[in-house]
Amino acid sequence: MGRIVTRRPVLKIALGHPPVRRADALAVEEPLEIRVGGAPLAVTMRTPGNDVELAAGFLVSEGVIAEGAELHSAIHCGGPGAGGVENTYNVLDVTLAPGVAPPSPELRREFYTTSSCGVCGKASIDAVRTVSRYDLDDTASVTARSLTEFPTRLREHQSAFDKTGGLHAAALFDAESGEMLVLREDVGRHNAVDKVIGWALLENRLPLRGTVLQVSGRASFELVQKAAMAGIPILAAVSAPSSLAAELADSLGLTLVGFLRGRSMNVYTHAERVGVDAADAWQREGTA
Amino acid sequence: MGRIVTRRPVLKIALGHPPVRRADALAVEEPLEIRVGGAPLAVTMRTPGNDVELAAGFLVSEGVIAEGAELHSAIHCGGPGAGGVENTYNVLDVTLAPGVAPPSPELRREFYTTSSCGVCGKASIDAVRTVSRYDLDDTASVTARSLTEFPTRLREHQSAFDKTGGLHAAALFDAESGEMLVLREDVGRHNAVDKVIGWALLENRLPLRGTVLQVSGRASFELVQKAAMAGIPILAAVSAPSSLAAELADSLGLTLVGFLRGRSMNVYTHAERVGVDAADAWQREGTA
Repeated sequence: MGRIVTRRPVLKIALGHPPVRRADALAVEEPLEIRVGGAPLAVTMRTPGNDVELAAGFLVSEGVIAEGAELHSAIHCGGPGAGGVENTYNVLDVTLAPGVAPPSPELRREFYTTSSCGVCGKASIDAVRTVSRYDLDDTASVTARSLTEFPTRLREHQSAFDKTGGLHAAALFDAESGEMLVLREDVGRHNAVDKVIGWALLENRLPLRGTVLQVSGRASFELVQKAAMAGIPILAAVSAPSSLAAELADSLGLTLVGFLRGRSMNVYTHAERVGVDAADAWQREGTA
Repeated sequence: MGRIVTRRPVLKIALGHPPVRRADALAVEEPLEIRVGGAPLAVTMRTPGNDVELAAGFLVSEGVIAEGAELHSAIHCGGPGAGGVENTYNVLDVTLAPGVAPPSPELRREFYTTSSCGVCGKASIDAVRTVSRYDLDDTASVTARSLTEFPTRLREHQSAFDKTGGLHAAALFDAESGEMLVLREDVGRHNAVDKVIGWALLENRLPLRGTVLQVSGRASFELVQKAAMAGIPILAAVSAPSSLAAELADSLGLTLVGFLRGRSMNVYTHAERVGVDAADAWQREGTA
């Protein structure tokens, strides 16, 4: 396999130290299209590897099969990708054993429309770029010091998390003033972000120029996509981004910050929007 | 609102102390069906509250609308639920402004088939029960001491997580011997679980009687559903379960363990499968 982890250059910022650029490991995220008998059934964003198991387990979870004998074969679609040359191994065609009923039409859930045997990160990125109505030619900037304060303020306002430990949060901050504009919680990270964006739409604030979207967990492809659709120029996550999140952010011109914890962070893309004050870039005497 | 947090009885086990039964707060998870112009568009598992924002943000994320003026109205479907009396507020009907193109057919993604204006936890639970081919009349049991060791062993085998911090893991353990049968990692928790179940199908091991499925993060409705479809009697999560995860597990006869950290855990449902050795239920002198 060898595609479970990839490396990208990242700007590491820690207050009190000069920022350093170095390579960082990211978990690979790529779309897999699962087909049954040649017909597309689902597209899931996954880490490559064990794709046959993934498709088989998905079909068990959805009630299509329940025994090994009901799965006849599963092969990667070997043709060239949409771009031409590259074989992406991101389409898997499953053949059910004779007599096994195919998945019902209701079960077909397609997150991204695909027309060829070449689902890949690039195609997904192009799809997002095509449909987004707002561009990210935003000159907004935020200081590293402000960013380090956002996760704490997120937690301070997370009333339900304190009780349950089970809710994700997303909050929108003004990049310049650092003011928190709105915070929403949900069991699903993507829902918390949708609620924030929906709030902005209802307040007639789209596109969300000059803002930072802060999320409580990881940054997936889907969250970058949502931020871009709303015109948000800066996305900051407490935990790790996936490879495709970084690729999409890079391509769309969005600033992606990850591992934002304590006084440090990684800036994965478009670091030009993150400012480090001179006073914060110096290691003071007596500090580590 | 008032439905963002709910309470359930839970058995709290800490090695060295007698287990205690008490109420615990859970984040509420319920399905929301989003309709546009009366036609179902998507079902998402969400925490109730700010539903109009959620639907509006979803439509922005999917490129259907981009300005407040394009959303005419959004109202909860006020009729009685599928059960008859209860108004579940889990269906929201959005009307777009005149001239706004409706969502394309490709965009319609339905996770659960719904036919009436009464999507609710109960309907979802019934749907799962109907399609699962394996029942959970499993007399498997596991000791609390074994359970406390699973998260550590999960982390020990998570090679990619150490590098990236961005991968979820799911592993299957033999309930009796504590042997780890398989471990899979993925950017998506549901994918990691699908890979484990797919492995079992390919090994002709379904249904997975006598096993414990250990996951690295939270336990959602979807993970309980997947475990049940594969006949796994015990699901253990390092973090919090949602309310619907606990309800579904309770209804299906599945043992759900959460907050499994260090020497303690919460058993949310079917605690009869978790054994506490006499030696572990006593507070020894000199220990807290």
